[in-house]
Amino acid sequence: MSEIETPPAASPNASETVSFLGPAGTFTEAALKLAPEAKGKHWKPVTNVLEALMDVQQGRSFAAMVAIENSVEGGVTATQDALATMDGLRIFGEYVVPIRFVLAVRPGKSLRDIETIAAHPVAYGQCRKFLHRTLPDHLYVQASSNVASARQLFEEDGLADAAITPPTIQDHFDVEIVAEDIQDSSIARTRFLLVTTRTDLPARTGSDKTSIIVTLPEERPGGLLSMLEQFAARGINLSMITSRPIPESPGRYRFVIDLDGHLEDARVSDALLGLRRYSPSVKFLGSYPRAVPSPVAVDPSYSDAHYAQAQDWLDGLVR
Amino acid sequence: MSEIETPPAASPNASETVSFLGPAGTFTEAALKLAPEAKGKHWKPVTNVLEALMDVQQGRSFAAMVAIENSVEGGVTATQDALATMDGLRIFGEYVVPIRFVLAVRPGKSLRDIETIAAHPVAYGQCRKFLHRTLPDHLYVQASSNVASARQLFEEDGLADAAITPPTIQDHFDVEIVAEDIQDSSIARTRFLLVTTRTDLPARTGSDKTSIIVTLPEERPGGLLSMLEQFAARGINLSMITSRPIPESPGRYRFVIDLDGHLEDARVSDALLGLRRYSPSVKFLGSYPRAVPSPVAVDPSYSDAHYAQAQDWLDGLVR
Amino acid sequence: MSEIETPPAASPNASETVSFLGPAGTFTEAALKLAPEAKGKHWKPVTNVLEALMDVQQGRSFAAMVAIENSVEGGVTATQDALATMDGLRIFGEYVVPIRFVLAVRPGKSLRDIETIAAHPVAYGQCRKFLHRTLPDHLYVQASSNVASARQLFEEDGLADAAITPPTIQDHFDVEIVAEDIQDSSIARTRFLLVTTRTDLPARTGSDKTSIIVTLPEERPGGLLSMLEQFAARGINLSMITSRPIPESPGRYRFVIDLDGHLEDARVSDALLGLRRYSPSVKFLGSYPRAVPSPVAVDPSYSDAHYAQAQDWLDGLVR
Amino acid sequence: MSEIETPPAASPNASETVSFLGPAGTFTEAALKLAPEAKGKHWKPVTNVLEALMDVQQGRSFAAMVAIENSVEGGVTATQDALATMDGLRIFGEYVVPIRFVLAVRPGKSLRDIETIAAHPVAYGQCRKFLHRTLPDHLYVQASSNVASARQLFEEDGLADAAITPPTIQDHFDVEIVAEDIQDSSIARTRFLLVTTRTDLPARTGSDKTSIIVTLPEERPGGLLSMLEQFAARGINLSMITSRPIPESPGRYRFVIDLDGHLEDARVSDALLGLRRYSPSVKFLGSYPRAVPSPVAVDPSYSDAHYAQAQDWLDGLVR
Repeated sequence: MSEIETPPAASPNASETVSFLGPAGTFTEAALKLAPEAKGKHWKPVTNVLEALMDVQQGRSFAAMVAIENSVEGGVTATQDALATMDGLRIFGEYVVPIRFVLAVRPGKSLRDIETIAAHPVAYGQCRKFLHRTLPDHLYVQASSNVASARQLFEEDGLADAAITPPTIQDHFDVEIVAEDIQDSSIARTRFLLVTTRTDLPARTGSDKTSIIVTLPEERPGGLLSMLEQFAARGINLSMITSRPIPESPGRYRFVIDLDGHLEDARVSDALLGLRRYSPSVKFLGSYPRAVPSPVAVDPSYSDAHYAQAQDWLDGLVR
Repeated sequence: MSEIETPPAASPNASETVSFLGPAGTFTEAALKLAPEAKGKHWKPVTNVLEALMDVQQGRSFAAMVAIENSVEGGVTATQDALATMDGLRIFGEYVVPIRFVLAVRPGKSLRDIETIAAHPVAYGQCRKFLHRTLPDHLYVQASSNVASARQLFEEDGLADAAITPPTIQDHFDVEIVAEDIQDSSIARTRFLLVTTRTDLPARTGSDKTSIIVTLPEERPGGLLSMLEQFAARGINLSMITSRPIPESPGRYRFVIDLDGHLEDARVSDALLGLRRYSPSVKFLGSYPRAVPSPVAVDPSYSDAHYAQAQDWLDGLVR
Repeated sequence: MSEIETPPAASPNASETVSFLGPAGTFTEAALKLAPEAKGKHWKPVTNVLEALMDVQQGRSFAAMVAIENSVEGGVTATQDALATMDGLRIFGEYVVPIRFVLAVRPGKSLRDIETIAAHPVAYGQCRKFLHRTLPDHLYVQASSNVASARQLFEEDGLADAAITPPTIQDHFDVEIVAEDIQDSSIARTRFLLVTTRTDLPARTGSDKTSIIVTLPEERPGGLLSMLEQFAARGINLSMITSRPIPESPGRYRFVIDLDGHLEDARVSDALLGLRRYSPSVKFLGSYPRAVPSPVAVDPSYSDAHYAQAQDWLDGLVR
Repeated sequence: MSEIETPPAASPNASETVSFLGPAGTFTEAALKLAPEAKGKHWKPVTNVLEALMDVQQGRSFAAMVAIENSVEGGVTATQDALATMDGLRIFGEYVVPIRFVLAVRPGKSLRDIETIAAHPVAYGQCRKFLHRTLPDHLYVQASSNVASARQLFEEDGLADAAITPPTIQDHFDVEIVAEDIQDSSIARTRFLLVTTRTDLPARTGSDKTSIIVTLPEERPGGLLSMLEQFAARGINLSMITSRPIPESPGRYRFVIDLDGHLEDARVSDALLGLRRYSPSVKFLGSYPRAVPSPVAVDPSYSDAHYAQAQDWLDGLVR
């Protein structure tokens, strides 16, 4: 048995298709289950983030679910760079999936039968403590994904008699679970983004996030500080910032930024205006509800009401 | 002869009257000569800055000329504090007068007749080098103003036989000048403001200045830095900043600020909006042409055109 | 009677002399009474701030008491500029004097006898409310100081029958007080500095202040913000900042700054080092106890103990 | 043939061993070839970054070579997080390897024989343009690494008849190269770090980099800006900054930072002192020469000489 990817027999309409980093059974699929927009659609597994985003950009899918942060399945940096360089894409939602692993065996086998364990290297690294404690003498076989590990249990020449996989593996393979929650950390999570070409925005909820990518002006020292002052001057908190070198411009950087708030918040649109004047390139990637709702704390100085009051004051200065 | 101030016999209409720190012959009067708005009006001398500004506030004069910076006749701090606390006043223009002094005597007297010199203490302090070099053995009589010194030459029991006064003294007294430009510094100047209750603004010239007074929020450490970031984030240069304690609120400060630009410049109105949201109190004192024209250098990032472009970009983000 | 200044008959030794802005009876004299260093010394009245400071610089006095802030007797800006440009001077102490005025008359006179009032123009301006309420029909005679007003009561051809003066006037003239605390504001104060050439520092008290004058580098935009970051980066609060144009360098500024803390506080010396590297010119004017004791609140991050811990940490980084 | 990892028959001494993300033939191996410290040592392939770093921490190897930025083989975020949480590790050098791919086949095969291509998904994504142009109808088989793809060419039941691999593959497998430099971008690179437990530092070269991990204080808004001011206040440029959520402390972040300069530069040690006082946790990861030498531009204000001058000035302030 191999993992050849073949086109689906009858390709569903793009408006009915969501691409994701397959195969089925991965954490990305778990994220899709959380997204109302993906419900009842065709879920198309692809082999890497770029392919998923190109499906959206080129109209083969109306959306893609891609990992953006803290993933055990890779793709973080690739996603950031793809969103920075590909046009026409918008983030429409984010979803957080807890990272949990189980130890799966073929039906009838038990924990003490295990000699060789198949696992994706990153998953393997996240279950060290359990393995050291419970199966100190096991052998290790590398697998290409968290699902491919389970598939090895059923291969003719497969050496593995156990696989480290996500809990959802039982939806796809006839396996038995001999140990649950075997990951070292109980709080690991992966954050996923639902990416589309829609240019309308999800409604403001008060618990929103806005993603942008900003390039610093070439000639300015202290440029990062000046850029961040645009946020500080409007009381805006950043929940993520990452510098990424710009391959075409050695020594220059773009910054991938998530900020608290929605484009329709006066302070956010004001900060984007400020950035746009300061920076040669600001890419707006979307405003969308936080995966884990938690109202954005807004200093009253920067509330919409205060923005309106200040405008009234300014308008009244001149007769 | 005394210096009792009496009301003018026939008080002219307020719309024809400008108050100034008299008596006639002072540098303030020289500033009035530079102001087109004061031409042909009645110039009313008053004894202190507060009185001049109250004349305007209470409608006895349509304008007042008051010293604001670097004065040899005092009034600087008093003017700042008065503008901070009095309502309804606006700066309509600024004028700069070079500080020059002459040594005046009664007709027929000469330099070698001089034994005792009358001078306002500050003026006296500004002519030390000349006096030390030319009249090392003189006696000194204190005068209450730069004009009162000349008046002493004609008093019955006056001891002074020379007076330090402005060059314009000959418009007012029958004196002879025995030495010109006797001040130590050739670059001393006083800056004056023409204060009115007009709420229209002098037209934008490209070489403008805006004056404001800003109070810091009580509870914020690093408040000054945050306030200044409002200017930095719009590329605005400050030409003057002074902290003044707020008598009613020990430990708190207001800041008297002159910034480069006119309220009708997009970056200036944007910065005022930012300040207004940040600060519990922003007092707009006026936008007016600089006394010494010199175009404001504007970073293209903060030009009106760039402001308009950024707004267009923002408007286009959402379908 | 005139106000000619004559040298004292027997000039006391400089080490026994303190110069002050005279004449006797002014608020500056009241400040001298607060300074332990001035006790039992000869107090030499001079006519302006420059003269007082030159007495110290040139060794005629060991100290001078000069007004620095909020004065009703002028001198603020002059003092700042003198401290900026004169070498070898240090501030050794500060003293705050509440500004209070009384209405004085010749013995035997009463409030209802008053027709004409002598006052320094600034003092006159500060007692408007009382005068308007109590003596609405008075005439006004200008005086050259807060003591000269009282002297007019005893001049032969004097017109004044009342004088606005400080409460201490009774130490110098045989007057009667017919109204006390006639100033509009009950909280006006003047801050004075005791200036010397001593280069040792008053001992650290925990309630100290440090005065410096800093010039911005010529070529840097946003220079003020960068300078202030030197303080913010060490958790240091400024209690006063004033920009002063540098007459010799049009368009450039020096900043007169008071900061909370003593040179021997690690965070203060660290900030001065930072400023000195950043700025072409930092002038240290002294560390001295606050006039009104109030412990400086120090963020634990910037305490001396934390400075020592950080140094230990750094020393331990490299084997 | 399988990929079971077995302990080496005769384990070499730890002081002779460098761990790396294997298998042999990867870009990580190419980085090892650039490191003088690794020359002539035993190179031990491991399956993930954590394992490599634990080998060093626990004394099984004296160094590990791990990818840190822009990798096509993953590991970036994992490396950052491992360096943040594991104790006792130091970066001793960095190495940059250009990312180049070839298309390899079994001897005797040619381009037109290719039907199915084996590749690691990320490598596959980086060669899209070449594949689309040259082999538009190929099938794709996923491989677990850039070397495993070549291994598939020799597996009994292997479907692949071509593999995307690094150019060094010919050192390990008897393959023929039918196309070179097939990657889309000619400028992709991966940056690697040589990690050790040494606490001495590589000598200062003038073209150095310092890596740190900083946690923001919990309670401070605008914390990132304040942290960055510590660098700005010493004229230090950052070449990389990335926020990473702290799993144990929801809503808090650590920042992984590379800055220009060496710990022995006065401005760098001064900035680390500043950070250490500000932040509850600063982890020093090492100072080491840049992989691509390029002298650090130092503002004269922050040169070692200027630091020494400032200290002399401060020492001279007090007698």
